[in-house]
Amino acid sequence: MTFLDRLRARWTDADTLLCVGLDPDPSRFPAHLRDRDDAILAFCAAIADATAEFACAFKPQIAYFAAQRAEDQLEELIAHLKRAHPQVPVILDAKRGDIGATAEQYAREVFERYGADAVTLSPLMGFDSLAPYLAYPDRGAFLLCRTSNAGGSDLQMLDVGGEKLFERVARLAAGAWNSNGQLGLVVGATYPAELARVRALVGDLPLLVPGIGAQGGDIDATVQAGQTASGGGMAINSSRAILYAGQSEDFAQAARLAARATRDAINRCRLRP
Amino acid sequence: MTFLDRLRARWTDADTLLCVGLDPDPSRFPAHLRDRDDAILAFCAAIADATAEFACAFKPQIAYFAAQRAEDQLEELIAHLKRAHPQVPVILDAKRGDIGATAEQYAREVFERYGADAVTLSPLMGFDSLAPYLAYPDRGAFLLCRTSNAGGSDLQMLDVGGEKLFERVARLAAGAWNSNGQLGLVVGATYPAELARVRALVGDLPLLVPGIGAQGGDIDATVQAGQTASGGGMAINSSRAILYAGQSEDFAQAARLAARATRDAINRCRLRP
Repeated sequence: MTFLDRLRARWTDADTLLCVGLDPDPSRFPAHLRDRDDAILAFCAAIADATAEFACAFKPQIAYFAAQRAEDQLEELIAHLKRAHPQVPVILDAKRGDIGATAEQYAREVFERYGADAVTLSPLMGFDSLAPYLAYPDRGAFLLCRTSNAGGSDLQMLDVGGEKLFERVARLAAGAWNSNGQLGLVVGATYPAELARVRALVGDLPLLVPGIGAQGGDIDATVQAGQTASGGGMAINSSRAILYAGQSEDFAQAARLAARATRDAINRCRLRP
Repeated sequence: MTFLDRLRARWTDADTLLCVGLDPDPSRFPAHLRDRDDAILAFCAAIADATAEFACAFKPQIAYFAAQRAEDQLEELIAHLKRAHPQVPVILDAKRGDIGATAEQYAREVFERYGADAVTLSPLMGFDSLAPYLAYPDRGAFLLCRTSNAGGSDLQMLDVGGEKLFERVARLAAGAWNSNGQLGLVVGATYPAELARVRALVGDLPLLVPGIGAQGGDIDATVQAGQTASGGGMAINSSRAILYAGQSEDFAQAARLAARATRDAINRCRLRP
């Protein structure tokens, strides 16, 4: 099964659109973990084990590992996720974008070194900067389309001849660039009108939707705007609101409750054909 | 001195616009290095030591280290460069681009962990995705503007209302976004007409120009198009044509000759006011 087959299966079989984002910030860890050499791995693995039942995907953000010199812990974390939760695909959030020869190196890092099932990419350098990732036929890639931050409007909302830049990216990802059906799009929950516009342009293309929780996106509006006719089509990411739901030794249980509540809040808004 | 002060000083004091790109591919290393555990570090340090005299900057490309699980060698390499060649600034080519909280982590990685003097960034997510890097006042950032690959045209050449997207990025980088004078732009040597257009738009803003050498950009056309009125303003990058100029034990000497020849070829085209 390809990454997107597995993601779609998870939406249906586990009845969840929740993506659990793993953005480990050691300064926010429970006190009993902070002094451990493998604190990042221990924290993320505990969160993942507690939330896997409610997750359609896990999304580690590589910057949080790289800033802490913890690439080895990211390797071990993804290996753990694949052993313990093989049904939950792993999206490595890395937002790579570079020319072909360099993109081949990044693709090797993401798919061979870390063994991720999918990656986030910037489309700014065009199709040939994406092709090396698509050479891994069972993996997937989500292209930045309409990001959840305020500054996303600076370029993504420019009119490029009757449509916005993010709309052009959406059409390319659903059409000319999606030669092997491996692409999805990143569209922020903080802009539901544009999320709805993307959905209208791309049919059932999978969307990775950050921005609920700490970033303020509304769950009801997000699901209404982004779901497909069959009530799926999205991996709605929450990171901080789940990771830091608890501050003490029971942090994983607090994360579990937060993940379940978010999964349920999303599901209450889903179409049930 | 800030990064850009140091880069400008190097253009004048060392009389060179050549940026030496460090894209280490172990499959192309001389045979006597391949079995060393620190082959990447040894190779890059030897190249840097042999070419520093002719370099206005060094530009390690992080993907080549990350794909080989060699972050530790990148740390050691940059520490070596700063010890042995403190006058030559280091640009870490990483093309990062993410929202603020995550960008803070990437900025910590680039500037604190690796100690780079400057970084390459994607502007697709807008100004707030750049701000965390600009919080380091002595460092610099080059924004992707018109990249050297063919696919660069897919989005960068779109008309955004009387100008191309790359022209808009150029104007923003030279104006509204350049609050503290820390920005430069990445403009490929493979498109000299657009390089000239960027130069016309941005005054003396520093440009990082990849694409000569293996990518086919013409040195004469590049210098004519991109130099400032005082014959400076560019760090013209060459990676593979220098790194792999020789295949045997004298590879560093071959790299030195290639770097000198490239420096000289660039200098023959420079204006000398």
